[in-house]
Amino acid sequence: MIIRKLKDIRATDRNVKSEGWESARMLLAGDGMGFSFHVTTLYAGSELKMHYKNHLEAVLVLKGTGTIEDLATGEVHRLKAGMLYALNENDRHIVRPETEMLTACVFNPPVTGNEVHDESGAYPAEEQLRQAVPAE
Amino acid sequence: MIIRKLKDIRATDRNVKSEGWESARMLLAGDGMGFSFHVTTLYAGSELKMHYKNHLEAVLVLKGTGTIEDLATGEVHRLKAGMLYALNENDRHIVRPETEMLTACVFNPPVTGNEVHDESGAYPAEEQLRQAVPAE
Repeated sequence: MIIRKLKDIRATDRNVKSEGWESARMLLAGDGMGFSFHVTTLYAGSELKMHYKNHLEAVLVLKGTGTIEDLATGEVHRLKAGMLYALNENDRHIVRPETEMLTACVFNPPVTGNEVHDESGAYPAEEQLRQAVPAE
Repeated sequence: MIIRKLKDIRATDRNVKSEGWESARMLLAGDGMGFSFHVTTLYAGSELKMHYKNHLEAVLVLKGTGTIEDLATGEVHRLKAGMLYALNENDRHIVRPETEMLTACVFNPPVTGNEVHDESGAYPAEEQLRQAVPAE
């Protein structure tokens, strides 16, 4: 049984900050659950264009408000506590938090923790990541 | 892209009530994410003995307090908002909510929505479930 506290994760390198967001990785690939589980904060006023080509992601909004734009259809959906969106087709999307938004996010396959968003907003697949490591 | 509201799910048969708990299945196996995602309420004062033999489960506590007992070790852990437990070894456990607890739960493999807890507290594997359907 794994027991973790969000407060403890915040103090480790499992808490990742980037432009417009911060994410506490409560469970990563190495935990062997077959998915990763993140508590992610999206900052007010940011515009987060994302395309996870190699991962499916589901996001439950816990606090705050904003919108998500589906770039395939142009549809814009309101986000607030109790709303879930799932990128079941690796959907290209833009999230625009109006206030700070707190979310619970699940990725399949699990994020390893070593990925960075590439220029398209995707997390590289593990193999792509390996190829990206420069030879010394 | 899938968009769902907790409030809407509450009004469907994806909202399941049983003794001591209630669960809104935001994502099920049929949604094709490779995991299921539930918003589950555990009622104050209940004692929930569970053993998911066929599923790994992670639970993030969103509201309320209680404890979880690991039946393999006898250890008891405090649960409150921001705590996560993961049953990475199909751990037998007892959750004892002191107050009503709201949780976000992820199952791998995904729950189909047709399972019921059997006498051991497990969700049967799909095959077992098929075998359990009485021939007419």
